[in-house]
Amino acid sequence: MNNLSNSPKANGFRMPGEHEPHAGIWMAWPDRADNWRNGAKPAQEAFIKVAMAISKTTPVTMIVNESQYQNARHRLPSDIKVVEMSADDSWMRDIGPSYVTDGKERVGIDWEFNAWGGLVDGLYYPWNKDDEVAAKICEILGDRSCRAPLILEGGSIHTDGEGTLYTTEECLLHPSRNPDLTKEEIEHQLKEHLGLEKIIWLPSGLYNDETNGHVDNILHVVKPGEVVITWCNDEFDPQYEISRKAYDALCTETDAKGRNIVVHKLPMPGPLFITEEEANGIDASNGMERTPGERLAASYANFLITNNQIVYPLLDAKYDEEARHILSELFPGYEVTGVKAREILLGGGNIHCITQQIPKI
Amino acid sequence: MNNLSNSPKANGFRMPGEHEPHAGIWMAWPDRADNWRNGAKPAQEAFIKVAMAISKTTPVTMIVNESQYQNARHRLPSDIKVVEMSADDSWMRDIGPSYVTDGKERVGIDWEFNAWGGLVDGLYYPWNKDDEVAAKICEILGDRSCRAPLILEGGSIHTDGEGTLYTTEECLLHPSRNPDLTKEEIEHQLKEHLGLEKIIWLPSGLYNDETNGHVDNILHVVKPGEVVITWCNDEFDPQYEISRKAYDALCTETDAKGRNIVVHKLPMPGPLFITEEEANGIDASNGMERTPGERLAASYANFLITNNQIVYPLLDAKYDEEARHILSELFPGYEVTGVKAREILLGGGNIHCITQQIPKI
Repeated sequence: MNNLSNSPKANGFRMPGEHEPHAGIWMAWPDRADNWRNGAKPAQEAFIKVAMAISKTTPVTMIVNESQYQNARHRLPSDIKVVEMSADDSWMRDIGPSYVTDGKERVGIDWEFNAWGGLVDGLYYPWNKDDEVAAKICEILGDRSCRAPLILEGGSIHTDGEGTLYTTEECLLHPSRNPDLTKEEIEHQLKEHLGLEKIIWLPSGLYNDETNGHVDNILHVVKPGEVVITWCNDEFDPQYEISRKAYDALCTETDAKGRNIVVHKLPMPGPLFITEEEANGIDASNGMERTPGERLAASYANFLITNNQIVYPLLDAKYDEEARHILSELFPGYEVTGVKAREILLGGGNIHCITQQIPKI
Repeated sequence: MNNLSNSPKANGFRMPGEHEPHAGIWMAWPDRADNWRNGAKPAQEAFIKVAMAISKTTPVTMIVNESQYQNARHRLPSDIKVVEMSADDSWMRDIGPSYVTDGKERVGIDWEFNAWGGLVDGLYYPWNKDDEVAAKICEILGDRSCRAPLILEGGSIHTDGEGTLYTTEECLLHPSRNPDLTKEEIEHQLKEHLGLEKIIWLPSGLYNDETNGHVDNILHVVKPGEVVITWCNDEFDPQYEISRKAYDALCTETDAKGRNIVVHKLPMPGPLFITEEEANGIDASNGMERTPGERLAASYANFLITNNQIVYPLLDAKYDEEARHILSELFPGYEVTGVKAREILLGGGNIHCITQQIPKI
């Protein structure tokens, strides 16, 4: 509710990296039948599996629309907290608060949300319930929130916790987000709200990603100075050029601390496409492309780092084990848990997109 | 979520008296236009005043339906926590959890709720959202809840925290509540869930009370062995006989500890009646009697005891000060705060009915 009188940065706040300790993970129960097939039932099963995996090491809270409360409460294990809260869909990464901390207090940054593009190319209308989620979560947690005058989704940024933010020009400079702000003004807002020194811009996100290229579907910060990106070996695939340019951008930059950035690679699943059976199970809508043959924006980079554990999507039997092996090497001492995630992918994102961490102070 | 494997009583739990320390008070924002006049706006103002009074000494959380969330958040001071939660109306005493504790843990007893009489003589339909409130609150607080196989509202009982419960035959034995249970079976359920030794039955509650005579509108426990009741000096008033019989029942009983019960008296306001202007502002409904001239079930006994403070309803300028004086005498060292409460009364209850305490462990 309360706002910070000065900028969070000026007050000594910074956004921790995802690899830092978590007090909990919040998620949102999927139920819209125009995005999730078969009345969202297969997606709900997948979300349950993700929540159960996370809850092995970190407490999970699931927000649920009133109409689905009893169903969610009965299906989820009792150690997962279920809280009634209205949302238009279930992308907690994008609608939840981006927490910053000064080491003593935790404050949730509450971005403006317009469903990935508002009336220009947003995915649904209205989106007001989604937009209210971040402040409601902060209120339940007893934390202050700070409304930021910037249209932004949590999945369009990655931080290293030491002053560096990674994002994409495709998304943050898209005319459907903040057309009245220059790149410098957007950088200023990000720096002031998240306590940053430097923004590293990739040209674009994953091929055919309806979020306008969220960074979290192509890159993940492993730790300060080290990232992992989705790589494509097929030079005839449209992803090839995108990954190549991301790699080049990262290798020619230094981070906020002046470090060269070590770039690791994850294989690209598929390519994967929506089947006719899958498309037929989805209610018609004006916003979302869910037709048979539509290419899915599938990426192993869309994993979650939480306390002592990596939860990553199983997407393609051909590459799942290779991805696990790479993640195990990148995160020594972490348990690497794979969860079948095609049903999440069908909705337009993956495990990172449906989770949001609350940092431990 | 979790249920107790044995009865709370067998596990060493008891319901504290209202005079014991509180961790917080929960309330529910009024919005139904078929109960609260003028779109519930005057009632909302009254609820705000009650919340602000309580929050001087005890943290307050207000649950709000999604459609009214922003309005409630903007109108309430920022130190009052606002949580989205669906409810059919706003009687937190009756729909919230009745907490029991063993000194180490707190467990919410989650009674079945049927809107004060279900399909027999209930006040509205449906009531499923109300019925889900208790468990949802416990879940948010991180407490276990225990569903009790008994239709009961929190306002129909008062405990002294030392094994005694006060209630009315009019309500608990009403055919619209638990017609399949005998009086002994109802006593057994109450004793096992609330850790009691003795139930003291008054014949009936306040005259023309649409709750079928909730005890909290005619009596309040001051402390173990001591109660205060609404008294009526006019022997031609229907309340006269009711109060007289309550007094006699109390004076001829001893409590769970074998004490004689000291009975204090509060004056009866009015009698008060709904005006034509008030009735005209209420949407028509099938369940509730809100016609001009309808007698209101007004009582000063419907106050809240919270940490170091009594919050009591201002109802009738002729008796408000006398009531304050009596309460000040009964609760030495407590601040006695009066809040204008006619708008709450018009909805069918008062300050005790719209609040529910969470005991401090």
